[in-house]
Amino acid sequence: MLSAHTVKSFDEDLNQLLVLISQMGGMVEVQVAGAVDALMNQNQDQAIRIVSADPAIDKLEAEVERLAVQLIALRAPLADDLRDVVSAMKVSGILERMGDYAKNIAKRTSSISSVQNLRSMVMLPHMAQLTIGMIKDVLDAYASRNVEKAIDVWRRDKQVDDIYNALFRSLLTYMMENPQSITPSTHLLFVAKNIERIGDHATNIAEVIYFNVTGEQLGAERPKSDETPFVVQPNA
Amino acid sequence: MLSAHTVKSFDEDLNQLLVLISQMGGMVEVQVAGAVDALMNQNQDQAIRIVSADPAIDKLEAEVERLAVQLIALRAPLADDLRDVVSAMKVSGILERMGDYAKNIAKRTSSISSVQNLRSMVMLPHMAQLTIGMIKDVLDAYASRNVEKAIDVWRRDKQVDDIYNALFRSLLTYMMENPQSITPSTHLLFVAKNIERIGDHATNIAEVIYFNVTGEQLGAERPKSDETPFVVQPNA
Repeated sequence: MLSAHTVKSFDEDLNQLLVLISQMGGMVEVQVAGAVDALMNQNQDQAIRIVSADPAIDKLEAEVERLAVQLIALRAPLADDLRDVVSAMKVSGILERMGDYAKNIAKRTSSISSVQNLRSMVMLPHMAQLTIGMIKDVLDAYASRNVEKAIDVWRRDKQVDDIYNALFRSLLTYMMENPQSITPSTHLLFVAKNIERIGDHATNIAEVIYFNVTGEQLGAERPKSDETPFVVQPNA
Repeated sequence: MLSAHTVKSFDEDLNQLLVLISQMGGMVEVQVAGAVDALMNQNQDQAIRIVSADPAIDKLEAEVERLAVQLIALRAPLADDLRDVVSAMKVSGILERMGDYAKNIAKRTSSISSVQNLRSMVMLPHMAQLTIGMIKDVLDAYASRNVEKAIDVWRRDKQVDDIYNALFRSLLTYMMENPQSITPSTHLLFVAKNIERIGDHATNIAEVIYFNVTGEQLGAERPKSDETPFVVQPNA
């Protein structure tokens, strides 16, 4: 009886962690989508709201950690359960960093107005959409411990990297042709890099899921294609 | 007797974690210094060595996590001790990300050759030196649970941000005047940003120390000065 009660309570506590993480994930999706939206529509008010919403994500991360520590201290979970709790802390840490990238994108809204009509900007919403899809799916994979879905997200990151590379090249060409646009274009470059990093972080969550479920590392052989910009030449 | 033995073993295990983290920290310092060195001296061989040394840091992080989980499972530490173990995992996660930034700097070595004589580049080694100093000191603070030292590191990040802002402005001006240098200058901008992020991560470790020792958050009121670039105007 006592044992069954203890087990049930661990599951309840763990479930509480999962609920918090799902809440964080939802907030991160909204922040990323909103940041790119604010940028594209030059909506400074929306950008300010996004920046000021970020501390709520940080607070949830602190709450996950507090609960996780409490859960470990009170329930003394065995190896597998413990691994779940540690994974929850890792995932919430990754989500918190994604939130920071969204905030950073929002902060750059006012610096980018003058490249509003730039062809490269068209790629941003598509890149953001793919990335938000990855966040959604990796959180589903996390909640359902679905390894296949996690691997699928991990593989899809290549698409985001490919758009980033195309955008990088296109922006550099644009900057060479329009030196007066260098400041806003540089901010746009950082925005694109931030989205690319958010995609990387989604793959990091996929790696946590994979390791948590299989006990193996997924990290080594991911097809990375954000190497291309390192060989971009002037006038390319 | 048994209790004393148990306590001693926990301390030994925790000490093993601290040794691993100190080892990771030493490797990160070497990687950051080496990456900037390779870049400044255009030493492609050194850059390749740095990229290939990064997985060793990743492995140490995995080892910290494995040991931490084992320690918690075997020793069932109480709240304060548990907090130490969770902090160790967080610090090793931050160090792993610093290592990634160093690797990314090294990867850009060959793309930056043509701005070798640029004035902005002179700022890089100084910026890197300050950042490496922060890493050293924050790891000392971590090992000795020295909150004052942690706060000092946290405050020093403003210096790194200030150099980053100066470098950002100087590079943008340079790019406007020399559009043919846009590709290497952009890579240099990302290098500077990476160093700035490494500094941020040192402050994150300071925040972990502060929270671990005092139970309070340090994060809210850090004087952030990497906002300036957001208002840089063309021809500024």
